Amino acid sequence: MGEPFLLTPGPLTTAFSVKQAMLRDWGSWDADFRAMTRSLCDQLVALAGDTAGEFVCVPMQGSGSFSVEAMLGTMVPKGGKALVLANGAYGLRAAETLRVMGRAYTLIDKGDYLPPRGDEVGRALDDDPAITHVIAIHCETSSGILNPVAEIAEAVAARGRSLLIDSMSAFGAVELDVNQIRYDAMVSSANKCIEGVPGFGFVIARRSALEPAKGNAHSLSLDVHAQWQGLVKSGQWRFTPPTHVVAAFLEALRLHAEEGGVPARGARYTQNRDVMVAGMRELGFETLLADRWLSPIIVTFFNPAHPNFDFSRFYELMKAKGFIIYPGKLTVVDSFRVGCIGRMDAEIMRRVVRAAGESLTEMGVDNAAPPAAAIAERAKLAA
Amino acid sequence: MGEPFLLTPGPLTTAFSVKQAMLRDWGSWDADFRAMTRSLCDQLVALAGDTAGEFVCVPMQGSGSFSVEAMLGTMVPKGGKALVLANGAYGLRAAETLRVMGRAYTLIDKGDYLPPRGDEVGRALDDDPAITHVIAIHCETSSGILNPVAEIAEAVAARGRSLLIDSMSAFGAVELDVNQIRYDAMVSSANKCIEGVPGFGFVIARRSALEPAKGNAHSLSLDVHAQWQGLVKSGQWRFTPPTHVVAAFLEALRLHAEEGGVPARGARYTQNRDVMVAGMRELGFETLLADRWLSPIIVTFFNPAHPNFDFSRFYELMKAKGFIIYPGKLTVVDSFRVGCIGRMDAEIMRRVVRAAGESLTEMGVDNAAPPAAAIAERAKLAA
Repeated sequence: MGEPFLLTPGPLTTAFSVKQAMLRDWGSWDADFRAMTRSLCDQLVALAGDTAGEFVCVPMQGSGSFSVEAMLGTMVPKGGKALVLANGAYGLRAAETLRVMGRAYTLIDKGDYLPPRGDEVGRALDDDPAITHVIAIHCETSSGILNPVAEIAEAVAARGRSLLIDSMSAFGAVELDVNQIRYDAMVSSANKCIEGVPGFGFVIARRSALEPAKGNAHSLSLDVHAQWQGLVKSGQWRFTPPTHVVAAFLEALRLHAEEGGVPARGARYTQNRDVMVAGMRELGFETLLADRWLSPIIVTFFNPAHPNFDFSRFYELMKAKGFIIYPGKLTVVDSFRVGCIGRMDAEIMRRVVRAAGESLTEMGVDNAAPPAAAIAERAKLAA
Repeated sequence: MGEPFLLTPGPLTTAFSVKQAMLRDWGSWDADFRAMTRSLCDQLVALAGDTAGEFVCVPMQGSGSFSVEAMLGTMVPKGGKALVLANGAYGLRAAETLRVMGRAYTLIDKGDYLPPRGDEVGRALDDDPAITHVIAIHCETSSGILNPVAEIAEAVAARGRSLLIDSMSAFGAVELDVNQIRYDAMVSSANKCIEGVPGFGFVIARRSALEPAKGNAHSLSLDVHAQWQGLVKSGQWRFTPPTHVVAAFLEALRLHAEEGGVPARGARYTQNRDVMVAGMRELGFETLLADRWLSPIIVTFFNPAHPNFDFSRFYELMKAKGFIIYPGKLTVVDSFRVGCIGRMDAEIMRRVVRAAGESLTEMGVDNAAPPAAAIAERAKLAA
């Protein structure tokens, strides 16, 4: 279509057939649409690995953050207390969400990208028996780090607390199998690794944890329990669903399965990342994170130290070549991000690298090495 | 496309070009999309008749009810008190929204369809000086009644209180001009009379009423003030917008203007209604409401008394003929609804009537007259 590729963490570049699925109007009350909703939920629960009927999927209108708020407001009771594990904007947003709702919480804030580790979570839980729920971010897209949710889940489960995971940008490409990692609810959205278009998110919750959550929510709209009960009773979303977005998502799920499910989707994204990172490093760019923490979702690069480098200009030069990149979100040093997700493969990523090299040349930047301050910042991670 | 027409109050049948506008992926951070958001807001403020820059438009992700909740949670402060004027499901939902949020409110509940009148609103405000805000439903789609918002607005303004209007299913086809009717905020959504697809709603608020609303909201996501400030600062929605739905809406706005704006849109819907109601009455059906209260949005008909009439069967027969109708929402008598909005004209409405007649014949219903109880119910309105 001649439109630019979106190297962003969602909305992202989707398959044309996903968009074509929106060329029809659906009645939200009609049985055909109710069957679409049921199929969507069944497929998502299966993607989470649940075969025992222990989990339910509840879609929720709005952006992913709406679904995060719905999960937190529904699962953390008014008398509960949450421990939020933050290492970037999305962890801090979860804490802010709890603050606005008036729910008690405490925060482990690791700064821009240092990962919260299982042992420190364990110590925090031992120190504060009032904590009922732990909130973890699977892939913190501020930095692109893939947080160690497996060891966090072990620490939480060993102490009998409840784990809620924001897997917004990871679910569908990184395994989050309920049989491998113990959690009570996770949240993601349509326009991430399943490669749908934006308009709704979904919560996959353990039935036994959701059942007692009736009446917890702070909001009529953002109530996962009420939405679930509405689906059970009538097969309908309580309020008007984004019908076209749902139709697109079903086509996206079909393509996801056709590609080979989570392992294949994850493998493609990993290859995207590896090709792109290798090429960018050849140009002199350096990643914020060491390889072991790089997610296959999005990668943060330091801005070059060269005085001719200007991010706005770099953004426009890349856009003119057909690639939309993403600004950084670090508080300490300047950076930008390149996403690896969406309907793109290694060949596209090679073109991204070529475009980055040409853009540097056009800006008169002969060396993309970051400033010493950035390297010093990164050294903290290794320490 | 061979798909059925949606005779429902949204999602509705949209123009093909509206859906075609979704065949492209947009980066939500990119300047192109920010310009689309600005255009959307500017056009909506203009549709409300504001030429003095006194009003702002704030789009909000999710269904229309999400936007209603956002408006109520933002505009009614925690120490405020709302008077909700209810005559159907949407008025009661506004009250329920306030209850869940823990905001003080009182209710005038007129039952299934009796309209709240200006004089009784005035008396209620005189009796309770603690009331700060009045919530009115413009077109209550439960019954299809067009409530008398002009006289309500006069009663509210005369007493110096603040009026919030849910014009979900009316805005864009029924005038709600800020120069004619005094209100501080109104709410509608993409998939109603502007004929877009579902995925977001919008609040049009008086700047001087929204400015002091900072920090009122009960929710991080559903905060109209914060969303507004985000738009002012960066031109972006705070959280991921439904980009494709926004693109579709801009095309819908273009068609709305091309048709001749609110008067022309309202005239087409009025003709749709008149043709359809006349035809249905010829078949023996009777409307719940007297003509004076009929909206051009959706019309409620009593189910026929004939023992062979079965709504589920009628629904399926109509669907097989290409028309999706809508179940009723009255508590006292059985009914169904037929919408007049969407990309449809009088010729389509004639086909609807023909399909209804054929469906009756196929069911063996030779007389569509309602039961005596329905007529008795309706007599209350005239009383």
